[in-house]
Parts: sequence; structure tokens; C-alpha cells
Amino acid sequence: MASTILPLELIDKAIGSKIWVIMKTEREFTGTLLGFDDYVNMVLEDVTEYENLPTGRVSKKLSGSTLLNGNNVAMLVPGSGPEDA
Amino acid sequence: MASTILPLELIDKAIGSKIWVIMKTEREFTGTLLGFDDYVNMVLEDVTEYENLPTGRVSKKLSGSTLLNGNNVAMLVPGSGPEDA
Amino acid sequence: MASTILPLELIDKAIGSKIWVIMKTEREFTGTLLGFDDYVNMVLEDVTEYENLPTGRVSKKLSGSTLLNGNNVAMLVPGSGPEDA
Amino acid sequence: MASTILPLELIDKAIGSKIWVIMKTEREFTGTLLGFDDYVNMVLEDVTEYENLPTGRVSKKLSGSTLLNGNNVAMLVPGSGPEDA
Amino acid sequence: MASTILPLELIDKAIGSKIWVIMKTEREFTGTLLGFDDYVNMVLEDVTEYENLPTGRVSKKLSGSTLLNGNNVAMLVPGSGPEDA
Amino acid sequence: MASTILPLELIDKAIGSKIWVIMKTEREFTGTLLGFDDYVNMVLEDVTEYENLPTGRVSKKLSGSTLLNGNNVAMLVPGSGPEDA
Amino acid sequence: MASTILPLELIDKAIGSKIWVIMKTEREFTGTLLGFDDYVNMVLEDVTEYENLPTGRVSKKLSGSTLLNGNNVAMLVPGSGPEDA
Repeated sequence: MASTILPLELIDKAIGSKIWVIMKTEREFTGTLLGFDDYVNMVLEDVTEYENLPTGRVSKKLSGSTLLNGNNVAMLVPGSGPEDA
Repeated sequence: MASTILPLELIDKAIGSKIWVIMKTEREFTGTLLGFDDYVNMVLEDVTEYENLPTGRVSKKLSGSTLLNGNNVAMLVPGSGPEDA
Repeated sequence: MASTILPLELIDKAIGSKIWVIMKTEREFTGTLLGFDDYVNMVLEDVTEYENLPTGRVSKKLSGSTLLNGNNVAMLVPGSGPEDA
Repeated sequence: MASTILPLELIDKAIGSKIWVIMKTEREFTGTLLGFDDYVNMVLEDVTEYENLPTGRVSKKLSGSTLLNGNNVAMLVPGSGPEDA
Repeated sequence: MASTILPLELIDKAIGSKIWVIMKTEREFTGTLLGFDDYVNMVLEDVTEYENLPTGRVSKKLSGSTLLNGNNVAMLVPGSGPEDA
Repeated sequence: MASTILPLELIDKAIGSKIWVIMKTEREFTGTLLGFDDYVNMVLEDVTEYENLPTGRVSKKLSGSTLLNGNNVAMLVPGSGPEDA
Repeated sequence: MASTILPLELIDKAIGSKIWVIMKTEREFTGTLLGFDDYVNMVLEDVTEYENLPTGRVSKKLSGSTLLNGNNVAMLVPGSGPEDA
């Protein structure tokens, strides 16, 4: 079992690697984490956005860096993506 | 009857053991608690996610550590899981 | 008529005794109050959860101590339960 | 016309007397106000709860003192009840 | 054109006169403003409440002073009422 | 391209001129901006309110000054109105 | 891979260039970023607003500078627009 890890430590360790972010609106994003702040606002690059529509799950690539608003984040999984679940 | 226990004490005692977390969105998670902060943001590993869909209850394993946003947590039950209820 | 009682005093007096907690999501809990903090996050044991479903009211016993998020609490009634209403 | 009255002064004057509280969830309560704090969390006794259901308006008596979460309160009317409106 | 007026100045000037308050829940109130605080919690007297129901707009007189929770207020119009709009 | 402008600077420059305010509830207002505070609570006069109803878009004039709650504002456009869009 | 970038740094770098802002209400805006503050309230000019209606996606040009409320922002993508996704 891993030793104790604080939330912000977990995110800090994920800088430069892949991360999967699930928003409260059920939208999901994967990308490489470039940075974050104390409110868990996050900057990602190489971003793919996933959306569950009535017609099925769609994904689209976003160009450039993307900023996600921390207060809209439900959960995040460093080093992973929806295909790993 | 157990003696008085403060909320953060209860979570602190649960570090390293199993915990069941129910979110305000009705999603549920079980896993091993690795750490938490004053906002009850929590880091779990060996995580299983449960979701109640119209077609029934589904669960999926998440790989790696997971961070849950504290302000989305409705309740948590250390040392337990939905199957114990 | 009882003398003036402050909200946190009322909860403090309820430590060690039965309490009925109604959440904003209409879920209800009864149990023995073990502790609380200034945000009215509460630790209960011997917990029963009540949920009003379209098919009727269901209840289930939760094992171990349970932490309820204070900002999700609508109201609480020390020394009582839904059957007393 | 009454002289200027600050919100917390109005509540303070109501201690020991009847008060009608309407929540954001449209639930209503009447009872005797025993105390309150700066967040307008309130302790009432001799409480009656009113709920507007599709089938009509129902009321039920709650035993013992009740704590109402201030951030869920939409409005309150000291010395009155729904029957006076 | 009137000179610059700060929000709390506008409310302060309305003390003792009629005011129309529209809540985020679309409920509306008119009455005489007796006082307010920095959170725009407001005390009104001679209060009429307006509600838009599927069956039409209903209004009812409330007896005594009424406290409205500031964080539920969408907008207010001193010296006016819905009939003036 | 205009030089850098901070949000509160933009509003400050709009004092005394026309402004179009869109609320989170999709209600819209135009009027002359008389003042504002750090929470972007705003005082307007000569106010027209626009509402998108199932039956179509309706507008009504409000008499006197109006205070809009800043935490309900989605966006604002100084010097403009819906007819300019 | 880009070096570490903090959220506010990302926005600061975008001043004077195109930015795509997605609100929690699913409305989207593109425009030139003129300024922002610590709450991620943003001033844009040359603004186009996109809205997904049941009948399809509509867009409209807004004249003048526009202020977007930071607490309503879900995400933003500097140097991009929906057509690039």
C-alpha cells in the first residue's frame, strides 16, 4: 500500500504526465498536466474531451493548452484515462 | 458507545484502510484512503466506482490513485462498502 | 419554554444520544452522535439511512461510523427519529 | 411605520416567541424560536413542518428541539404562521 | 441622469419607503424596507408576496415584519412594485 | 486592438452610459449604469427587462433605479443592448 | 512537452490574442482577451457568442467589449475556437 499522499501532492506528482479529469457536468478530459493552483484549476495540453450524449459517447481533440475551472472538477485520476477503467 | 470523535479524526483514523464515499451526484466509490486535506478532498487507491443507472447498478475498477473533490462528498463510511449496507 | 439555546449548543448536548438528520437531498439518517465540528460535519454510529423512492420509503443499516457533510444538512432533530414525527 | 430594524435584531426580538420559517426547498416550519447564530442557523421547539405535495399540503409535529440550517432559509416571519397569511 | 450611486447607498436611501424585491426563485415581495445588512438580508413590513403559478399570479399579505435572505435576492427596485412595471 | 483592461475598469468606464446585463437565469437588462461594487452588484436606471418566454421574447420598463445582484450576473456588455447583437 | 504553466500564467500569456471560453451553462464565446482578474473574470472584444439550441448551433457577434463572470466559466482554450476542435 502506498504511503500517505495529500491531495495537492498527488496532483503535483502528475505534472508532465497524463491525467483524466471528470467534471461535475459529467464531461471528461484527458491530457498532459502542465500546472495547477490551490483551487485545483488545471492547465492541460494534448487534450481530448469526452462527452456522453444520448446518441453515445463522443470525443474531440482540443488544440493548444486548456484551463479547467477547479470548482467544476468532481474527480481526477493521474496516469489514466477512461479506456483504462 | 464509542467516545466523542471529531469528523477529521474519523477520516484520519481511516488512512490506510477501506473507505466508502457517497457523492452528492449519487456516484459511490470504495478504495483505500491514502490521504486527505481540510476540505475533505481525498486520495484513494484500488478504487471501485459504483453508479446507479436506469438499467441497474454498474461498477468499474479505476487504475492508480484517484482524487475526489471534497465539496462534492455527501457522506463517507470508513471500513465499509455498499455490500455491507 | 426552554431557555435560549444556540445551534452548536443544541448539537453539543446531543453527543452520545440519538439524532435524526435530514439532508438537502431528502435522504434521512438516524444514529448516535459521536462528534461534530463548526461546519456541522457530523460523525454518527449505529446508523440507519432512510430514502423516499417512488416505490416507497426504504431504510438500511450502515456498519461502523459515518461522516455526514455539514453543507448538505437541511435540518436535525436531537433525540428523535422519523417514527416520532 | 416601525423604526429601522437590522435583520439579526429582528430575529433576536423573536426569541421565545412564535416564528414561521420558509426554506429554499419550499418546506415551511413554525415553532418557538430558542436561539440562532450569525449564519441564521435556528433552534426551534414545538415545531410543525408543512410540505406542499402534489396531493396537497401536509403538516406534521416534530418532537423536541429542531435545528434549521441557515443557508437553506429563504425567509422568516416572526410572530406568524402560514394560517395568518 | 442621476449621479453615481453605490448598491448599498441605493438600499440605504430606500429605508422607510416602498421596495420591490425579486428572488432567484421568481417569488416577488413588496413592502416597506425597515433595515438591511451587508449581505443584503432585508427586513420589510406591510409585505405582499407574489407568486407565478401555472394557474396564474397569486398574491398574499403577510402579517408583521419579514426577513428575506440576501443570497436568494436576484434584484430589487426601490419605490416601485410589479404593478408599476 | 484596445490596450489591456481589467474587469472592474471596464465597468467603471461604463458608469453614466448604457449597459446590457445578462443574468444566469437568462433574464436580460439594459439601462444606464449608476454605480457598482466589488461584487459587481450594479445600480441601473431607465431599465428595460427582457425575458425569453416559450411564447416569445417580452420586455418591460422598470420605473426608478434597480439593483442587480452581482452573483447572479453571467456577463455584461457596456454601451450595447440585445438589439445590437 | 511545454514546461510547467500555472493557470493565471496561461491566461496572462493569452492577453491580446484569441481565446475560446466555455461557460457552465454550455454557452461559448470567442474573442480577443483584453484583461482578467484573480477570479478569472475576463474582458473580451470582437466577441462571437455560440449557443447550442434544440434547432442547432447559433452564433452572434457582440459589439464592444464584454465582461464574462469568472465563477460561470467551465474551461478556456487560448488561441483557439470551436471550429478548431
